[in-house]
Amino acid sequence: MRATVIHGAGDVRVENVADPVLSEPTDAIVRVSLTCICGSDLWPYRGMERDGAGSRIGHEFLGVVEETGSEVNGLRPGDLVVSPFTWSDGECAYCRERLQTSCVNGGLWGSSGSDGAQGEAVRVPYAEGTLVRLPVEPDSELLPGLLTLADVLPTGHHAAVSAGVRPGGTVTVVGDGAVGLCGVLAANRLGAERIIVMGRHTDRTDLAVEFGATDVVPERGEEAVERIRELTGGEGTRSVLECVGTGDSLRTALRVAREGGRVGYVGVPQDGDGVDVREMFTRNVGIAGGVCPARAYIPELLPDVLYGKFDPGRVFDRRIGLDGVSEGYREMAERKALKVLVDPS
Amino acid sequence: MRATVIHGAGDVRVENVADPVLSEPTDAIVRVSLTCICGSDLWPYRGMERDGAGSRIGHEFLGVVEETGSEVNGLRPGDLVVSPFTWSDGECAYCRERLQTSCVNGGLWGSSGSDGAQGEAVRVPYAEGTLVRLPVEPDSELLPGLLTLADVLPTGHHAAVSAGVRPGGTVTVVGDGAVGLCGVLAANRLGAERIIVMGRHTDRTDLAVEFGATDVVPERGEEAVERIRELTGGEGTRSVLECVGTGDSLRTALRVAREGGRVGYVGVPQDGDGVDVREMFTRNVGIAGGVCPARAYIPELLPDVLYGKFDPGRVFDRRIGLDGVSEGYREMAERKALKVLVDPS
Repeated sequence: MRATVIHGAGDVRVENVADPVLSEPTDAIVRVSLTCICGSDLWPYRGMERDGAGSRIGHEFLGVVEETGSEVNGLRPGDLVVSPFTWSDGECAYCRERLQTSCVNGGLWGSSGSDGAQGEAVRVPYAEGTLVRLPVEPDSELLPGLLTLADVLPTGHHAAVSAGVRPGGTVTVVGDGAVGLCGVLAANRLGAERIIVMGRHTDRTDLAVEFGATDVVPERGEEAVERIRELTGGEGTRSVLECVGTGDSLRTALRVAREGGRVGYVGVPQDGDGVDVREMFTRNVGIAGGVCPARAYIPELLPDVLYGKFDPGRVFDRRIGLDGVSEGYREMAERKALKVLVDPS
Repeated sequence: MRATVIHGAGDVRVENVADPVLSEPTDAIVRVSLTCICGSDLWPYRGMERDGAGSRIGHEFLGVVEETGSEVNGLRPGDLVVSPFTWSDGECAYCRERLQTSCVNGGLWGSSGSDGAQGEAVRVPYAEGTLVRLPVEPDSELLPGLLTLADVLPTGHHAAVSAGVRPGGTVTVVGDGAVGLCGVLAANRLGAERIIVMGRHTDRTDLAVEFGATDVVPERGEEAVERIRELTGGEGTRSVLECVGTGDSLRTALRVAREGGRVGYVGVPQDGDGVDVREMFTRNVGIAGGVCPARAYIPELLPDVLYGKFDPGRVFDRRIGLDGVSEGYREMAERKALKVLVDPS
């Protein structure tokens, strides 16, 4: 089959690789219907540290079950399924607590020995614990929206939950990427009254407004902090969703939080730039979040996508085939594309 | 009157100062019955940065109301009261939300222009919002325990609440000072099942065990992390109370937290040593806490002290008069005393 392999910074290729086969009785083989490129794929693409050049890449996919191992219950060939961006056994203490990203048998697609999502098919370990069936036809126009359940939608939701967003609450979303936009959707869904999005790409912030943002702040750094304080009676917002992952963005997030507030962070931290807790101490601002246990949130978020309460699929502004993957990475890295949908069929 | 003044590192003196007088109609004058020395007083005593040598010091006191301004309701001369370590107006948005440390009119005892607690009397701004009446006689043997309501007991409680301690929960307390010991009490009070205290002073850890600690870990740093993981099936504890305030102690706290767990930090951060969120990200460990809104917690904690459910007054292991304050600081700084009670009468 064909799958995407990353060889180094700026070097992403679609190659012929071995077809996946069942190797454990808990495995399933899924033929990928849709996958996509994530902002976090751009870190290795841009040359950040990464173990093992030559490894598969991509961690978001939905597709059709082709084959299941003998111990897989509840899934049959032909089922349309979405996978969260990590696999998990569904049985360990962490999985039972809905923190499947800490599963003792879990892993991230594309990590050593596993298939990446940006290919024609994937061997799914612990398929029963990992995959979620989708009650739509394989040609449904909801598919792009449902694909966001793999990562960006639950990740935005994780930021909102970690930031304690509540009905009537005030929220700042740091970042206008796909996760930030999904953070706006999630905050709106949880009943926030005021949602300030920080971003300077008008096509993105326009979509943020459609997703429920009430204010757009194009400024950055100290100017953004001042602007957001102006907008909130000098106080900042109770909840802040940090959806970027740099030391600068996290510091900004902490500074626009209201005293007693909470920052929910989901941006993959890219620098060792530390958070000085002295800045948090007198203001009683807390930080929570981290890698999103998407598997935990999919059942809760799925109905709203299915019934069209909102359409997170709008974060995709390009659609390509596998042949276009290298171009897709380039467009996202150059911010010409917000999020690129890949149809490997 | 006589009051304690700090002139520089290691230089704390009791001096004659002006008697406090009512200057606002919301003021009260309180004659101090009992005060004490706090671990955080030791930071300026040890020569950490501090604005204004020659300023008053001390922020924990209980005493008898001597005089009230014309706008003070609910307090009369002769009332025995305890003060939290900050004053607050009781009326602003933050006070109404029980975050009195963020009061728009609030301040810390001993800060510029205010009286310190380690003296014979204190002018209390916003007395009605600040002080809490104590329904005991002025010679009650409960007074030392009630004095802990000013700071260390609610601060330990704030750490426990911020760390999400729940019935049946597992807890690590980093630090065996008075706040750490009160953290043990608070975690026990909230129903924690397992309470591991880190400390190597056996007189303190013995008291921690009496307060409800189930395990004592004398190791530090990496050895402590390993020991706590051994004690918890390799996982760490869901809640961690950081009661020290150094970068090292905070890093240790983060590392002994179970995945998905929470660090409640109340140690005043002493170094700019940053927290690397990369260490928190994949483990979904959050940090919350900060300066404790003691005023918010006093009504909840008071009954348990009054009715003898526990005796936090046991953290005091020395009792001195005002003349002994300099000696008291020295003993605490040299760790010969855990916490020094000062009777200025």
